[in-house]
Amino acid sequence: MTAAAEARQHELRETRDARLAVRLALAATVEPDDRTMTPRLRGLDPFAAWELVRTDAGGKFTRSAARVKALRLDALVARTQDLGARVVIPGDAEWPSGVDDLVSPPYCLWVLGSASLAQACERSLSMVGARAATPYGTQVAGELAYGLSGRGFTIVSGAAHGIDTASHRGALAAGGCTIAAMACGIDIAYPLANAGLLQQIEQSGVIVTELPPGSAPQKQRFLSRNRLIAAMSPGTVVVEAGLRSGSRSTATAASRLGRLLAAVPGPVTSPASAGPHQLIRDCGATLVTDVDDCAELFGAIGTDLGTVKRAETTVSDRLDEPDKRLLDAMPVVRGTTIAKLAVSACLTSREVTRGLAALHAAGLVERVESGWRRTQETC
Amino acid sequence: MTAAAEARQHELRETRDARLAVRLALAATVEPDDRTMTPRLRGLDPFAAWELVRTDAGGKFTRSAARVKALRLDALVARTQDLGARVVIPGDAEWPSGVDDLVSPPYCLWVLGSASLAQACERSLSMVGARAATPYGTQVAGELAYGLSGRGFTIVSGAAHGIDTASHRGALAAGGCTIAAMACGIDIAYPLANAGLLQQIEQSGVIVTELPPGSAPQKQRFLSRNRLIAAMSPGTVVVEAGLRSGSRSTATAASRLGRLLAAVPGPVTSPASAGPHQLIRDCGATLVTDVDDCAELFGAIGTDLGTVKRAETTVSDRLDEPDKRLLDAMPVVRGTTIAKLAVSACLTSREVTRGLAALHAAGLVERVESGWRRTQETC
Repeated sequence: MTAAAEARQHELRETRDARLAVRLALAATVEPDDRTMTPRLRGLDPFAAWELVRTDAGGKFTRSAARVKALRLDALVARTQDLGARVVIPGDAEWPSGVDDLVSPPYCLWVLGSASLAQACERSLSMVGARAATPYGTQVAGELAYGLSGRGFTIVSGAAHGIDTASHRGALAAGGCTIAAMACGIDIAYPLANAGLLQQIEQSGVIVTELPPGSAPQKQRFLSRNRLIAAMSPGTVVVEAGLRSGSRSTATAASRLGRLLAAVPGPVTSPASAGPHQLIRDCGATLVTDVDDCAELFGAIGTDLGTVKRAETTVSDRLDEPDKRLLDAMPVVRGTTIAKLAVSACLTSREVTRGLAALHAAGLVERVESGWRRTQETC
Repeated sequence: MTAAAEARQHELRETRDARLAVRLALAATVEPDDRTMTPRLRGLDPFAAWELVRTDAGGKFTRSAARVKALRLDALVARTQDLGARVVIPGDAEWPSGVDDLVSPPYCLWVLGSASLAQACERSLSMVGARAATPYGTQVAGELAYGLSGRGFTIVSGAAHGIDTASHRGALAAGGCTIAAMACGIDIAYPLANAGLLQQIEQSGVIVTELPPGSAPQKQRFLSRNRLIAAMSPGTVVVEAGLRSGSRSTATAASRLGRLLAAVPGPVTSPASAGPHQLIRDCGATLVTDVDDCAELFGAIGTDLGTVKRAETTVSDRLDEPDKRLLDAMPVVRGTTIAKLAVSACLTSREVTRGLAALHAAGLVERVESGWRRTQETC
């Protein structure tokens, strides 16, 4: 049994109330990226972890001291209730099991919305990309999200401008479920311009964060949030991203977690597609171009087989090889003779005669005064 | 020793004149795709092969009978000389050794132009793509060819409309060498609109074909020509191509021959990029976006290392991790206190104090009446 699994078993001997209290305390006092960077907390059951943080053991948790001092659990619980939100912890039916794959899983999650977080994550897909997206990027993201929603996928994203917004909107337009993972408290609409979008998501989907109410969006928190997005779903698609971008951190997290990673290409002349191109070229991301590609890659094996892309067949596809050659050698304007056709097409006279009959029956050649030629419509 | 190598050794005992005569006879009477489809000719030395064809051995070469009857070697040689062309056969200094990797190499090559075919092929790159290219495709092809020419690569292509034309033109614009491999006789300018381009290529590069003068461009001949393009150079780049296209046959040939295969992505909304996307996704083609990518992939190891693509660094990149967090937590309008910053940034008071000094020195924060805030320029 792993240390984490052992810690989990140990923790589950306590009541939910006790577990909730200690996890709320940790979430409110230890910054997510500090957890990642503090190996001492890894794999510890939260009771042991909280003891270290509360007592500033070994002077390793001095950063959290001011927060420990300011902590008011009752107020935190009341504020969460006032917001109509709920707190989900491991062991709850709504806990998304994917986040347990993280080295430092969230202590708890604040959840707002009508859908069940765990259920929504089951058949889901994360879509991330540039805030400064191009019209091409938002169009493609919107159409992918719309189509995948129609096939029963929940779209997970970060409610940011650009690709995130287009992805959420695409899912909502299809009447589907979408999850917004936030880099701030559940009480903060960020970016403000997306307040209306977040209300819509709350109605038919879920808003989720590991940060307590009142937490402002800060740069490090976006990176921590990105790892949540990667962990919650079985796969991530990057639509547009610069070479240096938050989406790259989500992609890296997805790869490390063994999640499927895909990227949508774009014009090589567009800096917004440089990120996806690099992910495809150097990071093992699968190139995806449409809903079929994504459904095949991310869907359950057997239920979402992609359609093989084929061009349409033409009349000449159904011809035998010698007849194709005969047709290719056939003049367009002046007719020619069987002997000349045999030389130019490199066929026997017998093959030419048999071929002319077949091509004539198919309406591809005609007999004129000077000999045989292609019919005009087929040129 | 392989059968082909043995046959070659056997053949080389004869004089060049004798070898040239028998190879010209075979080239003039056996269609390239018939050679591919006739296992009996594979690996045979040309003297033995010509005996089979000439005598229609076992009735297997009846297709060539009319051509054998019409063959006039003297006239063929005279015609070649009149055109200012030369015939190159294995053993000649100008023979491009890459084509010997083909299952059915050409019997001989008609060559026209100032450059040495073998030398030009040494450091070369095939660029192929759709005739019905988009402005995006021709722009990218032209720029790639121009840039790669500037780095000493010969550009091999097929002189067709669209991507081929843009590639040849890009190479010529850079004053580089380019090779046009034709699907017709060396005396035929196809497509006619490219007659001027072909003249330019002849002046500073090479035109090459395995078909005798007078051979018209026919569909099967394009496929045979495509295998030559793939074989002549160490790698092939597909710029734009539909799902069903001649470029795909060149790509397949390149893969089978163990040549490097690359493709340029484009908008997923453009059918002209569906071919490259499929090659990248399903056929192991490397995604390339610019001259650096191609030079790295196709160049000699060590001499053409690509530059690692990086975004520019900003002032805050050079900050320590705690200072970055402090900057992120810093308010923009009203100033705040060290105590509040410690809580919001999750840092110790000591880290905040030290950080404020560093950020202030970098001009990133300022002291106002209400406390510390970010300076306006950095937001």
